[in-house]
Amino acid sequence: MIDRTRHPSPATRPHPAVRAMSERRARRAVDVAVIGGGIIGLGIAWAVAQSGRTVVVIDPDPAGGATYAAAGMLAAVSELHYQEEELLELMLASSALYPAFIESLQTASDPTGYQRTRTINVGAEAADRQALADLRGVQLANGLGVEPLTVREARELEPLLSPRISGAFLVEQDHQVDPRQLSARIQLALAALAKDGQLAVIRVRARGLLHDVSTDAASRVTGVALVDGSTLRATEVVVANGLGAAGLRGLPEQLNLPIRPVYGDVIRLRVPEHLRPLLTCTVRGLVHGLPVYLVPRTDGTLVIGATQREDGSSAVSVGGVHQLLRDAQVLVPAISELELIELTARARPGTPDNAPLLGRVGCSQADGDIPGLIIATGFFRHGVLLTPVAAQYCLQLIEGNDDDRWRSFRPDRFSASRALASASPHGGHS
Amino acid sequence: MIDRTRHPSPATRPHPAVRAMSERRARRAVDVAVIGGGIIGLGIAWAVAQSGRTVVVIDPDPAGGATYAAAGMLAAVSELHYQEEELLELMLASSALYPAFIESLQTASDPTGYQRTRTINVGAEAADRQALADLRGVQLANGLGVEPLTVREARELEPLLSPRISGAFLVEQDHQVDPRQLSARIQLALAALAKDGQLAVIRVRARGLLHDVSTDAASRVTGVALVDGSTLRATEVVVANGLGAAGLRGLPEQLNLPIRPVYGDVIRLRVPEHLRPLLTCTVRGLVHGLPVYLVPRTDGTLVIGATQREDGSSAVSVGGVHQLLRDAQVLVPAISELELIELTARARPGTPDNAPLLGRVGCSQADGDIPGLIIATGFFRHGVLLTPVAAQYCLQLIEGNDDDRWRSFRPDRFSASRALASASPHGGHS
Repeated sequence: MIDRTRHPSPATRPHPAVRAMSERRARRAVDVAVIGGGIIGLGIAWAVAQSGRTVVVIDPDPAGGATYAAAGMLAAVSELHYQEEELLELMLASSALYPAFIESLQTASDPTGYQRTRTINVGAEAADRQALADLRGVQLANGLGVEPLTVREARELEPLLSPRISGAFLVEQDHQVDPRQLSARIQLALAALAKDGQLAVIRVRARGLLHDVSTDAASRVTGVALVDGSTLRATEVVVANGLGAAGLRGLPEQLNLPIRPVYGDVIRLRVPEHLRPLLTCTVRGLVHGLPVYLVPRTDGTLVIGATQREDGSSAVSVGGVHQLLRDAQVLVPAISELELIELTARARPGTPDNAPLLGRVGCSQADGDIPGLIIATGFFRHGVLLTPVAAQYCLQLIEGNDDDRWRSFRPDRFSASRALASASPHGGHS
Repeated sequence: MIDRTRHPSPATRPHPAVRAMSERRARRAVDVAVIGGGIIGLGIAWAVAQSGRTVVVIDPDPAGGATYAAAGMLAAVSELHYQEEELLELMLASSALYPAFIESLQTASDPTGYQRTRTINVGAEAADRQALADLRGVQLANGLGVEPLTVREARELEPLLSPRISGAFLVEQDHQVDPRQLSARIQLALAALAKDGQLAVIRVRARGLLHDVSTDAASRVTGVALVDGSTLRATEVVVANGLGAAGLRGLPEQLNLPIRPVYGDVIRLRVPEHLRPLLTCTVRGLVHGLPVYLVPRTDGTLVIGATQREDGSSAVSVGGVHQLLRDAQVLVPAISELELIELTARARPGTPDNAPLLGRVGCSQADGDIPGLIIATGFFRHGVLLTPVAAQYCLQLIEGNDDDRWRSFRPDRFSASRALASASPHGGHS
């Protein structure tokens, strides 16, 4: 379905008053419009802005979705799952880009919460430790550094870990960032680069894509129609609005974006003064087979996450909160003495193969890619980690280049009408 | 310490401009000033207003303290504790006054959330059931109706009770009210009775009591000094500001009000449509010796409470929330499917014998009671239940009467300088 209603064709000739209105509403034009102001959309906009192009982010509530809940672990190594080696490559590439990405944004007075702290993966029961040991085999086979620790060694690093844990593994290279600070910082940086008082972020919801109606359905995308009736002309449009992407008007009809909401509950705690620092590393645990993570911030708060629910409820789940508090206390009993300051539930955009939908899309087997359209959604649990690589890759595409390493993440890989050059990134899953 | 600063004595004669300011600030005068707009203060004010007297409640945040957290159980029978039989008499008297109290307030369009639902006391383990059975012995000895239920009978009343509970006891006469609705309703009713646009509630903190400085320390209380520098003249002042009572200036120096904060965490949940009604009775459980209660509201929410912490922390406790969610799920497993909508922590004003500090106070052994002063604090976990009897008794005292039944709750029973006619209400505890 292509939304042409907001983009008058040259053939029509409206009443002068209507035309004036139309011109006013369409007066904005930028090089790149990014639909979606989560961390992915903001990161892409920042890369675009740094290249000297004009860019606008369109989002009624920037950084208010999954970004708002996210703990901000940059855990390429710890997040490795079996048969997701291509995703690992993307995660490691992004991890390597993080220092420069932060360097481009952070100043002494503008923090992002980026910390090169380490990560300890803890098994509560013997079976949990064995699962982590098995994962280590895969991690080592992929050349990743994971060091086994005895319970004593783990407690030397983190004295408040329970003496009853079963074992632990240290990952030096898994760090963290504060997604709320980072996204706020990017918005400020974008505003500073915006010219002539132009908005860097338009706080309106996008309704759909504008097309050049002089051609057929494979026509070039030329901008964005907003729900307030206004339009924004753009040379390139990046669709980065997470779960909202599939509902956007004007996407190619045959394009299947199989994103589904995977809800997560996240808890924020405050550590009383007498217990600080509670932890210095990120602690990722497996407790009776269930994952839980504890991410300490320098401001004395602690983030505990996250459930993965597909129950359709966007509310904070009692069962979820209970499980997280219970399992976090199994790993670090002193958690019971903390103050509970925030409960958050948000949906992550999940995909069938747990990999993002990232790149340009074709319209049919015969046609090439649709000009002016890039998609960047489906980052699931990895949006914060994958922001630098998504930003770099989208800028490459805008500059007319591609990167063969990431072609397997093409957003049209689940679309029947397109025979993909490359298979789905994780054969057997899709 | 008596605060005389805000009440110029007749001997002083300030500059005319100062006097004008002073008169403006002291222009208000009422029959009764109630310090504290929690449910107790509001209830007393309502009784006073109905008697035809003018009354003002002084509170910067009416109904924002323990009242805001309270679940509103009217559970005189279930709340009975060993050696607290005098408190039981007060609770039963208040329980009996509740229907008329509600009748005076509630209309079809002005609900109070009063419901004559029943209460089921549930024991999770055999030891919990035995503790409840032992309590029933005391309840029966006091003439109270408590009916033992088999697990099957309990689950016929409440089908979502776990089949793994150990036993249950039904109390027909323990009902509930919604303290937030009730306190909002009283404030509206007070405003409707207030004359000539006078405020029913002054949203300022009280600093202390005004005294008639022409006499000695046993002098009559004549009003209230507020922190904004204004004063309020009153024939009678009722001190009903909970934990704030002890810090009020102008109380007799030898009066010891031993109130301490007992913090409680309370959780509010929303029941999804497909699980309604989750419960129709109030469920009070004992789980491994720890109490937890589940109070269903007609709006589809559920209140779970409450911890008792003396750790000095006014923040929501992780350990407390975890315990409540865990134990509530032991009683009603479907709780895990509910939505968590609110966490609240508030301090209750506890006393050494768990009984309120209620009545007039003497100044020394020789003197009689201080005219113009009534104290009503220390209601601990029973403020909502005890509101009607506290209101009725305070009005009696204002009218010059006393009630021998409640003299043992005199607020000066812990004050060394006063030899009380009656002992502490629960001999051996104080």
